[in-house]
Amino acid sequence: MSQKNEFDLIRLYFAPLADDKGALNLQDDAALYIPTPGNELVLTTDTIIEGVHYLPDTPPEKIAAKLFGVNLSDLAAKGAKPKACLINFAPHKNISEAWIAEFTAQVGAALKAYDIKLLGGDTVAAPNQAMFSLTLIGEVASGGMVQRGGAKIGDDIFVTGTIGHGFIGLEDAKAERSSPCRDLFEYPQPPLAFALVAASYMSAAVDVSDGLAADLGHICKASVCGMQIDLPAIPFADPVSKNLLAQLNGGDDYQLAFTAASENHDKLKQLAAEQSIQLSKIGHITDGSDLILLNSDGLTLDYSSTGTSQELPSGFSHFGMKK
Amino acid sequence: MSQKNEFDLIRLYFAPLADDKGALNLQDDAALYIPTPGNELVLTTDTIIEGVHYLPDTPPEKIAAKLFGVNLSDLAAKGAKPKACLINFAPHKNISEAWIAEFTAQVGAALKAYDIKLLGGDTVAAPNQAMFSLTLIGEVASGGMVQRGGAKIGDDIFVTGTIGHGFIGLEDAKAERSSPCRDLFEYPQPPLAFALVAASYMSAAVDVSDGLAADLGHICKASVCGMQIDLPAIPFADPVSKNLLAQLNGGDDYQLAFTAASENHDKLKQLAAEQSIQLSKIGHITDGSDLILLNSDGLTLDYSSTGTSQELPSGFSHFGMKK
Repeated sequence: MSQKNEFDLIRLYFAPLADDKGALNLQDDAALYIPTPGNELVLTTDTIIEGVHYLPDTPPEKIAAKLFGVNLSDLAAKGAKPKACLINFAPHKNISEAWIAEFTAQVGAALKAYDIKLLGGDTVAAPNQAMFSLTLIGEVASGGMVQRGGAKIGDDIFVTGTIGHGFIGLEDAKAERSSPCRDLFEYPQPPLAFALVAASYMSAAVDVSDGLAADLGHICKASVCGMQIDLPAIPFADPVSKNLLAQLNGGDDYQLAFTAASENHDKLKQLAAEQSIQLSKIGHITDGSDLILLNSDGLTLDYSSTGTSQELPSGFSHFGMKK
Repeated sequence: MSQKNEFDLIRLYFAPLADDKGALNLQDDAALYIPTPGNELVLTTDTIIEGVHYLPDTPPEKIAAKLFGVNLSDLAAKGAKPKACLINFAPHKNISEAWIAEFTAQVGAALKAYDIKLLGGDTVAAPNQAMFSLTLIGEVASGGMVQRGGAKIGDDIFVTGTIGHGFIGLEDAKAERSSPCRDLFEYPQPPLAFALVAASYMSAAVDVSDGLAADLGHICKASVCGMQIDLPAIPFADPVSKNLLAQLNGGDDYQLAFTAASENHDKLKQLAAEQSIQLSKIGHITDGSDLILLNSDGLTLDYSSTGTSQELPSGFSHFGMKK
């Protein structure tokens, strides 16, 4: 894109999406955001790079869907309502207008679905590899942000949805197979509506993006606690597969893993049912510092933290704390 | 960088810079920002791409300095005090630890100089070309943001500093010549302190990043007005050069151009003097829609809006409204 076309394209495709007053008609280099009184802001940003997060021939609508999905998942884990966003848009210098039209159509669909205001951003043509960053601004009632560090000994551990559909979906995408897992991998559906009503009943939360094992490790590290996880209780996307460890470590699930005190269980189950969200109790917080995985025999399982997709062996060990 | 090294490097080099409570020790995928009561937020983001905004062999401290300079300049033009930031850090996959150390040292210097809190961001290795985005959060008293659209007929037009040092600095950098213009080009020094005290006396403002002519055009378009500019009054970095048009269009000056009612002139001059800021009155707002450039004979000058660095011809025309 030439510099001139770039401006034309902003006007043509992004300006109609940026209809909030704070976007200043995208005629400015900055945007105005007026926080809702009594609220605090939750900020998150994630970058999607061609050749790292998606293959060069990925359709633009899938890139835009992923860009919003991964960031919305981060806000869900904080119990934060998405309010506004900025997009750093750096497509290939030789992309077509049709590409931009398809990308921005999906951006518009995400903005509408989640009631997010596009306030601004930055557009530049990338010479060698495209890259897109989304910065999301969410709000929580003051003091209401769910953190990773709030888990207490005795709390139970829950996950929403299924675990491992990210890994299986990637395999299906590579093999060009259609499947429900591939749909979830390409169009992440973080349980945001559930998170917003359930956040006040959670003691700690994380979104499952790095792999359930690693993400639970984030809670252990931040909360300075251990975990005991019941392997048969994990809702694997493909529970009869031999690649359970790969499903556990594959990431890209964009579900929530969270902890909660026992008095909140009934309320959480009720809220999940109201939202048609699958909710599974998979273990509890311990006073150690390790993540112990128990199989159906009650034996702890040997586990290598390298994240390779070997079959789950039996024996004893624990997850290394990643990150 | 491998995935593992990436996490190590965040911890080693970015974590010490992210010492605000809202950064959550960079152990989370989101950050907390608590707005100051009575304030509104000004958001800006800009991306720096290897091969577009800097040459591949540019020292990392210059890349970091530019990343902060261009974004701080945007906040200055709004009269907004920088408060916090997020960094999308996508260096080359094969960069050295020394490179990261130098980059983050300059980031640390900028955070300290402007009292900005690093709250978070995103790190990923870029396979083909590095890219860095900075999202800055600034604050203004409610209703106090200077906009591009506030210029009134009869207002005078001012610029801070000199115009054209960006263009000359780039030429010097290409020729590997040391010069004060090159220093300003590589280490932008937007007049932020002046902007913060003077903003309430401005009716409209813009930072000079696209070139003075284009940036004044932004004010014309947003304020629905025309301008008459006195060429001899423009404080060119090299006023005896034959490339005045290039200095006018080159951009990368990161100074302020703003408009103000006549009753505010004395106060603005006083504030500029207190800050040792060069302040030049270069024209006034008209009721037309064109940007008219007058030379020393009082004749309007022919001007091509293509932004080429041809010598200024005499004759009659006006600036096309560039975005």
